[in-house]
Amino acid sequence: YNGAMSSSGGPFTSLVVSRPTEAITHVELNRPEKRNAMNRAFWSEMVDCFNQIADDPECRVVVVSGAGKIFTAGIDLMDMASDVLQPEGDDTARQSWNMRKIITKYQETFSVIEKCPKPVLVAVHGACVGGGVDLITACDIRLCTQDAWFQIKEVDIGLAADVGTLQRLPKVIGSRSLVNELALTARKLYADEAKSCGLVSRVFMDKEVMMAAAMEMAGEIACRSPVATQGTKINLIYSRDHSVAEGLDYMATWNMSMLQTQDVMKSAQAAMEKKSLKTVPFSKL
Amino acid sequence: YNGAMSSSGGPFTSLVVSRPTEAITHVELNRPEKRNAMNRAFWSEMVDCFNQIADDPECRVVVVSGAGKIFTAGIDLMDMASDVLQPEGDDTARQSWNMRKIITKYQETFSVIEKCPKPVLVAVHGACVGGGVDLITACDIRLCTQDAWFQIKEVDIGLAADVGTLQRLPKVIGSRSLVNELALTARKLYADEAKSCGLVSRVFMDKEVMMAAAMEMAGEIACRSPVATQGTKINLIYSRDHSVAEGLDYMATWNMSMLQTQDVMKSAQAAMEKKSLKTVPFSKL
Amino acid sequence: YNGAMSSSGGPFTSLVVSRPTEAITHVELNRPEKRNAMNRAFWSEMVDCFNQIADDPECRVVVVSGAGKIFTAGIDLMDMASDVLQPEGDDTARQSWNMRKIITKYQETFSVIEKCPKPVLVAVHGACVGGGVDLITACDIRLCTQDAWFQIKEVDIGLAADVGTLQRLPKVIGSRSLVNELALTARKLYADEAKSCGLVSRVFMDKEVMMAAAMEMAGEIACRSPVATQGTKINLIYSRDHSVAEGLDYMATWNMSMLQTQDVMKSAQAAMEKKSLKTVPFSKL
Amino acid sequence: YNGAMSSSGGPFTSLVVSRPTEAITHVELNRPEKRNAMNRAFWSEMVDCFNQIADDPECRVVVVSGAGKIFTAGIDLMDMASDVLQPEGDDTARQSWNMRKIITKYQETFSVIEKCPKPVLVAVHGACVGGGVDLITACDIRLCTQDAWFQIKEVDIGLAADVGTLQRLPKVIGSRSLVNELALTARKLYADEAKSCGLVSRVFMDKEVMMAAAMEMAGEIACRSPVATQGTKINLIYSRDHSVAEGLDYMATWNMSMLQTQDVMKSAQAAMEKKSLKTVPFSKL
Amino acid sequence: YNGAMSSSGGPFTSLVVSRPTEAITHVELNRPEKRNAMNRAFWSEMVDCFNQIADDPECRVVVVSGAGKIFTAGIDLMDMASDVLQPEGDDTARQSWNMRKIITKYQETFSVIEKCPKPVLVAVHGACVGGGVDLITACDIRLCTQDAWFQIKEVDIGLAADVGTLQRLPKVIGSRSLVNELALTARKLYADEAKSCGLVSRVFMDKEVMMAAAMEMAGEIACRSPVATQGTKINLIYSRDHSVAEGLDYMATWNMSMLQTQDVMKSAQAAMEKKSLKTVPFSKL
Amino acid sequence: YNGAMSSSGGPFTSLVVSRPTEAITHVELNRPEKRNAMNRAFWSEMVDCFNQIADDPECRVVVVSGAGKIFTAGIDLMDMASDVLQPEGDDTARQSWNMRKIITKYQETFSVIEKCPKPVLVAVHGACVGGGVDLITACDIRLCTQDAWFQIKEVDIGLAADVGTLQRLPKVIGSRSLVNELALTARKLYADEAKSCGLVSRVFMDKEVMMAAAMEMAGEIACRSPVATQGTKINLIYSRDHSVAEGLDYMATWNMSMLQTQDVMKSAQAAMEKKSLKTVPFSKL
Repeated sequence: YNGAMSSSGGPFTSLVVSRPTEAITHVELNRPEKRNAMNRAFWSEMVDCFNQIADDPECRVVVVSGAGKIFTAGIDLMDMASDVLQPEGDDTARQSWNMRKIITKYQETFSVIEKCPKPVLVAVHGACVGGGVDLITACDIRLCTQDAWFQIKEVDIGLAADVGTLQRLPKVIGSRSLVNELALTARKLYADEAKSCGLVSRVFMDKEVMMAAAMEMAGEIACRSPVATQGTKINLIYSRDHSVAEGLDYMATWNMSMLQTQDVMKSAQAAMEKKSLKTVPFSKL
Repeated sequence: YNGAMSSSGGPFTSLVVSRPTEAITHVELNRPEKRNAMNRAFWSEMVDCFNQIADDPECRVVVVSGAGKIFTAGIDLMDMASDVLQPEGDDTARQSWNMRKIITKYQETFSVIEKCPKPVLVAVHGACVGGGVDLITACDIRLCTQDAWFQIKEVDIGLAADVGTLQRLPKVIGSRSLVNELALTARKLYADEAKSCGLVSRVFMDKEVMMAAAMEMAGEIACRSPVATQGTKINLIYSRDHSVAEGLDYMATWNMSMLQTQDVMKSAQAAMEKKSLKTVPFSKL
Repeated sequence: YNGAMSSSGGPFTSLVVSRPTEAITHVELNRPEKRNAMNRAFWSEMVDCFNQIADDPECRVVVVSGAGKIFTAGIDLMDMASDVLQPEGDDTARQSWNMRKIITKYQETFSVIEKCPKPVLVAVHGACVGGGVDLITACDIRLCTQDAWFQIKEVDIGLAADVGTLQRLPKVIGSRSLVNELALTARKLYADEAKSCGLVSRVFMDKEVMMAAAMEMAGEIACRSPVATQGTKINLIYSRDHSVAEGLDYMATWNMSMLQTQDVMKSAQAAMEKKSLKTVPFSKL
Repeated sequence: YNGAMSSSGGPFTSLVVSRPTEAITHVELNRPEKRNAMNRAFWSEMVDCFNQIADDPECRVVVVSGAGKIFTAGIDLMDMASDVLQPEGDDTARQSWNMRKIITKYQETFSVIEKCPKPVLVAVHGACVGGGVDLITACDIRLCTQDAWFQIKEVDIGLAADVGTLQRLPKVIGSRSLVNELALTARKLYADEAKSCGLVSRVFMDKEVMMAAAMEMAGEIACRSPVATQGTKINLIYSRDHSVAEGLDYMATWNMSMLQTQDVMKSAQAAMEKKSLKTVPFSKL
Repeated sequence: YNGAMSSSGGPFTSLVVSRPTEAITHVELNRPEKRNAMNRAFWSEMVDCFNQIADDPECRVVVVSGAGKIFTAGIDLMDMASDVLQPEGDDTARQSWNMRKIITKYQETFSVIEKCPKPVLVAVHGACVGGGVDLITACDIRLCTQDAWFQIKEVDIGLAADVGTLQRLPKVIGSRSLVNELALTARKLYADEAKSCGLVSRVFMDKEVMMAAAMEMAGEIACRSPVATQGTKINLIYSRDHSVAEGLDYMATWNMSMLQTQDVMKSAQAAMEKKSLKTVPFSKL
Repeated sequence: YNGAMSSSGGPFTSLVVSRPTEAITHVELNRPEKRNAMNRAFWSEMVDCFNQIADDPECRVVVVSGAGKIFTAGIDLMDMASDVLQPEGDDTARQSWNMRKIITKYQETFSVIEKCPKPVLVAVHGACVGGGVDLITACDIRLCTQDAWFQIKEVDIGLAADVGTLQRLPKVIGSRSLVNELALTARKLYADEAKSCGLVSRVFMDKEVMMAAAMEMAGEIACRSPVATQGTKINLIYSRDHSVAEGLDYMATWNMSMLQTQDVMKSAQAAMEKKSLKTVPFSKL
């Protein structure tokens, strides 16, 4: 994927972006020597990266994973502390004003995943800590290995998580008691409980098996009509934040044009002819 | 149930409506030779059927099931294709306008289940595909057999599901990761996973056992005060789409009159006398 | 906890409030001879009790449990019947008006738990019936014993639950099918199913073990920064009732000042020095 | 307009529907001998009438006015009293249940005006009392004569207005102080104040002048692209009930197809050639 | 009005509460020597006062006015400065936490006016500055004298108004351009412009004339059914904060019981007999 | 204002940005020979311009006006037609997809005005057509000359306005009847009616007088605490889109830190010393 570049013009330093197939983009957290800790570069490169993906008509699905021994250790406090601990400003109001700008900017780092219309799978192995939980709750499908564990770390350092976990996790899993327990005690959640509470939809033996399965699942999504899959993502997210009646109204307004696609005929024909959708060439979107 | 009729005046052709007891209405999808595929008649008969049920003061609970080998194969594309694939209109705007009217009308086919104040149980055996998932997510309680499976089929034919699944399923089950995976890959969900994710609340050995249990559960609901059970349904649906504070306000406003019923005294007395509620005659509603 | 008093000036008669540690408040339902049935005193003492806790700068976490053989049998109908069954008023409108005032007041009995910014754990043993379910769904973390069971009792006495269960339970657990079944049939939910559906996050062998674990978990919360834990509770509840975008905006506005706390530095330092947070003295809040 | 019929098969008895031009439908309240009081027939004929208009592809705009000396005296209490005063039911809960069904049905009588996508002008002369205010606030554009007056009459007969005035009027005019005063004191609002507060957008000397102007304004709307005017109405109503951000999102989703119309080219060409839009033939919608 | 007392047990010191008739409560800001500046006592006495009014079954309407030369000079900075300027707390987070408690408490001072179901008229003469604007925008009907002027003073002392003006004023008047101008420049708004923009619904020559008119208008409201007037207020406020569809649903649920009142028959009979409503004895509410 | 540059690196071609004083930024639409028609450059330069202003700590207020004979003729159809009329894409769904991206991008052109926390005044002379109305409704304060007129032009060219007018205008002025009339008939609104309906808050004799007054008003805002004025703007916009209760909660959370500013003391001192705020040096924000 040659085009991947940070907004400052050079290549990404915290991410590796590759293209296993034309339609699948693989984004890898890539500071393995730092346990993929989220440093200053990461927070802005994610925004550039997902904005580029959103605008790339060839890409139909994204897989996110971490290089090295664990998925991510979360925020790189060494690199970020000055931002977070000492906001500029002549008085409390001004320091707070600047702090709010910083938080809002950091929230965007994960919100871009959600705004990107391509479905995003995330494959977690080993630890997924702090900012890692913010990241994965903004993805669409979560997979993990047997040895994975998850930890909402923020209360341990004296703050309420503020870049997505408290907002998205309760809408992602099916036990508010568990959400509250995790967020208030910072205890670890292991793979089995992550599966039974619905945080991940599948657990795999090891990273290799998981990555193969993730790519296969990505392939299943990539071979389907992008009009269908991306419309599905957009409307699922819309529904989360609206009443059923509003979701239905939006859906009808969305599909009044989106059903008018050759993809329906192409898909239906493949179904009748018992052909795999992987053989069907859909126009790019 | 003699009164059941389509709005065109004749009997239903896609549904059979019966009355196992005075208070229970049984609606059966009844095109077994077509695997209960949802044809043109079905989409309008459901509306007539549930509007009649809503206005029937004797009926206190509804059971929906499918005749024949499976629950439903979903939309009958052969019968419906002209509607969906070739909306009328002199230009794109007009075709889209007409498409929106069609989608809105089809959405109503399942929304009537929700608008009907009587609790609706659905009992699924075998396959429940495409439109079937739209249907069951609009019901209140879901049961299934061991051999049941569920499939959000729409992405396979190039479209985003638009008559309820994307709006209701995420509010029905406890894993958004799973919802997204099912909707984006069209993979099958089998009974065990349906139970563990909360799509169904009970799984039964076979259809016969399930139907007996469904009728028994329907009987449990039917013997209770209709003021209580129908008020419960209405407020549960209201709560889904509102904040807790708004739900509480609505509930207080609802119950300021609904608690003023003889049913409370009758129920309390039965409880004190250790009598079954099945022996208590509540007035019709 | 010497200060605990009802608003009428005397000590509580339905609750016992104690202080296992300075930072943990233990609220015990305490009418064991009446199976902790919720009598007139209870409904107002809860409000006084949690308002006092909310204003107590030493308290950082609350544990709720029941004295005697069971958690609670729910509303004490003998004591309350006159309120609920015979609202005053010269005509139906006026009786309804007064009924609404009563319901609104009773709703407040459990809403105070949610409005109190300190995290609230509830530990259930034996039966938790009717009003008990309203109570526990307003708490943040739910634990129970193996022998615990839960029952939404209201439909059995002819009314739709109106002090919180229908509003909060569907947002607490991950299966709407199960919520509806429980609310419409009044069937019992046992500990195992309560765990698998997410109503409770942990199940314990017996009450003794559970209380020890509850106190330990409370200790884990109490030793963390109160700025962090109380901000977490407030924002988790805000998120439940708002879209993700609104939740993020509120969170950023909240944390623009709440991150400016010595607790971050104290916590970070403890982490670097591998010290337990229990050794860190945070200022009161 | 030959097709106009009540759902019971006969012609309307409370309304006269005519067709001044092919694209303009004129609905006249037509019980002048009863001061156009809203009797039982009226409440259901309005629904039939506006549903037919909504489905009529030729009609592009609607004008509503009243025959005889005044616009309307409001509800015909003589004809309606049994409905409103004595709802059926064995106890208060059941009477309330039936009352709610009645109110909901009556609300629909005016909501159909809003759901009909064709712009609706209403021209008021003389008195517009009670139900008349409910009616006109559901219309899009309000005109009146110098001698017109408006009165929210409900508090005078012991009830809070419940079929639209309290919901729509505050969103229609620019002074909440005035809305409250009118609704709480039932005082008359005369034409000049109706203009200055924004209830009507124009005042005319007498009915004849007003009807001519109403028809001219209707003609201005009717000659424009129906894709444009009906999309405008739908989005204006959507915006009223949503935040600006949500309104913009819906608008973009709406127009992604609705801009793809020949009407844009036809309209632009007429503009360049300085031709009147009245000479441009738009396809029906 | 003998019962009027502050929560500390003594009589009010900042307010005088009287009873011109049994059904009308007159609340007078009463620190004329301090230009009715809002001191510490005022902020809590208003809460006690309106809570007592809300629970007083005889009172049907409230009139608020100011003693002495002007309505109010707004907050009494001398008395309040310590609260607002130096919140307690060991760090910024804790000071902010306490500041938020203070603001929330002060917001309640005016929100009680809105929560009180009795209609509240406010009569303004002379200056209405700062907190005065917060106060009057929480009332239902606003009247003023020719010499009255209004000023949103907060930006002049370096803060954004936070006890109601910024939230309520834009929903009270019909020009957002004017709202913004007033709030951002702190310029005075005089009676004529207050009338034309809709802030007040009537302007009077002097205070005496205004008070007579206010009492007459209060009498008009007081003589009507309290079920009708208080239901009207509650639903008008509900509608302000909800969509039209939600407002209609709430209204129907409200009136299903509230129409079942003898007041309808009494009112209708008075109308038929051409008797004044002032002669009709309605039961208290 | 030397820093003003388009994102492509060169100076703006459709705008002139100047700095009458350090705290006031003046943005002038500057294609007078084209009647300030909004060409391709304009749509993106506005975004760059207001993002730069938002981040400029010196700027405290913005004035927008138009160079030449009129404010703006609206969209430059010649320059923009290819975008709007012929979206790319292999089928209707894909063309619609691209159209939605375009509309969303154009909406941002005016939404940046609202997202910029500095108050924005707009001064209109002569014509303000089509896109001009979208622009001014996103500003905070609107002024105009006697000869100004406003026109929602979109229906004249076959489309529903989709970059802000239909969403914002109804929340800006106090007569929905007038909004609908203007949007559906494209009739001109002249200065006097613009004033009486509240679209503008002041009308001036000619452009020179208006610009002087605009700069004076800008000066009044600029001399006040930026913590106060920008917090006021942000909360006024928040309130527009939320209920009063939500607005109050957000305001309290905002001000818990924003009241902790030296500006309060500085402002209060100036007031006590009767000094103009123009002499008070506030820190930049």
